Amino acid sequence: MEYLDGTWKKEICDWDVLMGESVLDQTVTAEGTIHSIRHMGDVAFIILRRREGLFQAVFENTKGNVSIHVFKEGMAVRIYGLIRKEPRAPHGRELCIDRIKILSAPAEPLPIAVDKWKINTSLEAKLNFRSIALRNIREQAKFKIQEALVKAFRDYLYGRGFTEIHTPKIGARGAEGGANMFRLSYFHKPAVLAQSPQFYKQMMVGVFDRVFETGPVFRAEKHNTKRHLNEYTSLDLEMGYINGFEDLMAVETGYLQYAIELLKKEYGKELSILDVRIPQVSKIPTVRFDDAKRLAAKKYERRIRNPYDLDPEEEALIGKYFKEEYQADFVFVTHYPSKKRPFYAMDDPADKKFTLSFDLLFHGLEVTTGGQRIHDYYTLKEKMAARGMEEEGMEKYLDTFKYGMPPHGGLGIGLERLTMQLLGEENIREVCLFPRDLSRLEP
Amino acid sequence: MEYLDGTWKKEICDWDVLMGESVLDQTVTAEGTIHSIRHMGDVAFIILRRREGLFQAVFENTKGNVSIHVFKEGMAVRIYGLIRKEPRAPHGRELCIDRIKILSAPAEPLPIAVDKWKINTSLEAKLNFRSIALRNIREQAKFKIQEALVKAFRDYLYGRGFTEIHTPKIGARGAEGGANMFRLSYFHKPAVLAQSPQFYKQMMVGVFDRVFETGPVFRAEKHNTKRHLNEYTSLDLEMGYINGFEDLMAVETGYLQYAIELLKKEYGKELSILDVRIPQVSKIPTVRFDDAKRLAAKKYERRIRNPYDLDPEEEALIGKYFKEEYQADFVFVTHYPSKKRPFYAMDDPADKKFTLSFDLLFHGLEVTTGGQRIHDYYTLKEKMAARGMEEEGMEKYLDTFKYGMPPHGGLGIGLERLTMQLLGEENIREVCLFPRDLSRLEP
Repeated sequence: MEYLDGTWKKEICDWDVLMGESVLDQTVTAEGTIHSIRHMGDVAFIILRRREGLFQAVFENTKGNVSIHVFKEGMAVRIYGLIRKEPRAPHGRELCIDRIKILSAPAEPLPIAVDKWKINTSLEAKLNFRSIALRNIREQAKFKIQEALVKAFRDYLYGRGFTEIHTPKIGARGAEGGANMFRLSYFHKPAVLAQSPQFYKQMMVGVFDRVFETGPVFRAEKHNTKRHLNEYTSLDLEMGYINGFEDLMAVETGYLQYAIELLKKEYGKELSILDVRIPQVSKIPTVRFDDAKRLAAKKYERRIRNPYDLDPEEEALIGKYFKEEYQADFVFVTHYPSKKRPFYAMDDPADKKFTLSFDLLFHGLEVTTGGQRIHDYYTLKEKMAARGMEEEGMEKYLDTFKYGMPPHGGLGIGLERLTMQLLGEENIREVCLFPRDLSRLEP
Repeated sequence: MEYLDGTWKKEICDWDVLMGESVLDQTVTAEGTIHSIRHMGDVAFIILRRREGLFQAVFENTKGNVSIHVFKEGMAVRIYGLIRKEPRAPHGRELCIDRIKILSAPAEPLPIAVDKWKINTSLEAKLNFRSIALRNIREQAKFKIQEALVKAFRDYLYGRGFTEIHTPKIGARGAEGGANMFRLSYFHKPAVLAQSPQFYKQMMVGVFDRVFETGPVFRAEKHNTKRHLNEYTSLDLEMGYINGFEDLMAVETGYLQYAIELLKKEYGKELSILDVRIPQVSKIPTVRFDDAKRLAAKKYERRIRNPYDLDPEEEALIGKYFKEEYQADFVFVTHYPSKKRPFYAMDDPADKKFTLSFDLLFHGLEVTTGGQRIHDYYTLKEKMAARGMEEEGMEKYLDTFKYGMPPHGGLGIGLERLTMQLLGEENIREVCLFPRDLSRLEP
């Protein structure tokens, strides 16, 4: 009987070993994809791309087992050879190719020069050739940064007693209401794709006290802007026994601090490749919605058109204001008007026109919406009635409150928006592997 | 200006403090939900439920600031009182209530006795009252175990150079083909929900070498069985530069070992609550598909009806065989027939009727499907042609191979199935927070 015992076969040289002292003047086996080839007569420099980075190999035409003309960019190879010091090479060393084994070969030359520092093509072309364009080192680095933001979210919350949950994306109705739902037929029953895990994460607060989910959400918004996606990854949390919605802003601030530390500690290479300016997260100012509007309107001489909502230009100006006045990259805008928040938002007892809620702006763009929710069954029913909402179909959600729920609240962070602002990208599609928008359903 | 600095307000006693020595004979403030109330004349024992577990409080009617009759199960409370030793209480201590603040009150008595050790009701009722039934300690514990399985998957792979990816769930076509796709209209274009992240994770192997995703997948299968869900969480990985599909089985074995260690280390309470028997993962036997069929057929005197597929009874018998003969809880069944695997599966060069693929059976149930994929552009096109598949609409996927891909493979683990088998549950719905099946779209 043959068994697997969990040991991986390791014939191939690990990156750490490749970079170590002990490997110098030793013969190794290394694998990777040919990222670029520089011909210098009888010698060629072959840059290998591996998940850890680039590595220089050098090939002398008189020496190897194949002709120099066989090599192509995009070829996956296994190289046998000697590691020697070479101060001019990226890591101060290079691999002198003794023998090469071609693991797989491309059928055609690359349509995009991925070995350039910045890919010199349109966003549209990058998205059309997504699986090729991302082979560029800078393009890749964006998604390592994104990975860190998700990892930090989970690790920070795991460490604070949150339970991870997985809630359904197909449901009978949407949590946020409105028209922006994708509809489908679920075995002949009408169904929608989840706009957020809102109802489910609230329902789970009664079970686990603190929960989070990192998963896709779907918004059938007919916006074609640089900051909207129709499917995005939402970092959601919900927690019970809060003293107020300030607790939620504290959690988010703590998360951002944790994420920045993780980035510095484990993603230094990517921060450097992308030349990321680390935002200020040691303290984040808060401002009331109505004050924020007034401050921005006054300073930038702008008339307040709609007292109940922030339009994108206003958000940008509020961001600008807090940058200029307080050197702040982030600002919590609190107490959004009740009429612009969903029914489950808790109204401010001091003034019921406003809610105990907040958005987080990052360089003038909303990256988070959160707030305290109504936990009392009768209050929830009253608010639904006042809005003319039907209880039909909402019974399971309402049951949760009927049988007791602690005071609670939560927030949802748009992962791509957070990444975009951190990296200073102009278009959210730059930081989504396979964006879905009004016109893009592929690849 | 007010700021958030990431510090959480902490007026409330942490569980670790509640359980420590220093708190004995001290006055504390604790919060939780009233899980059960036991009246003993003028004294009542109130069991508080917190995310960390249950805690006993005792109330003397003559002492507190409210009447004993005010208390209801499902009430969220803040309690002020003295911690004293009490050998008969669960943690050897109890909280003598001095004062109590009601944070929120239920409107009606609980419809299910969640304080019982096992909930004494049908699965159907448990699912209908999901947010209530899960307040039971045993029900909760199942999902902590599930959390550990996901956490272990990510941590194991992060530690081995894998990059986490987020791929779209709405797409133009399915990866697995067939009729079991949910269809929707995406801004007037036909679209489907992802059956798996297969195409995307392969496309990302050319970028990051090793990738994983933990997310929902959707199967419109008209099966109403105890082991099928129409939406489930898939733990997917894909890795490049493999020597063969054995590498993938090694990765999975390594993951399972890591998960079991994590469970023992951090989820001991839940293992104990559910009385989980830890499966054998130090070594996992492998057997060829055709051999496995023969061995089971012979030992259990069963005729082989379909030489190309394993039916559920056959899987169960193979599991039984390896348990009886080798004390194995898991078994890798390898070399599935080509005609039962998708076009991207790599055929075995030694016999093209079979593929370099595997399923992992856990106590006789398939929990994983994996294998090596075709990485050569022309081979892929040939196999598609041989199956009469159109290339139209597959251009972006094929492009990835046209421009070079390393040898690679991957696997997908059904999270709920893995949880179900680990816990010895009879029905997969027991280990899904909000199951979606032929008849269930709510809650």
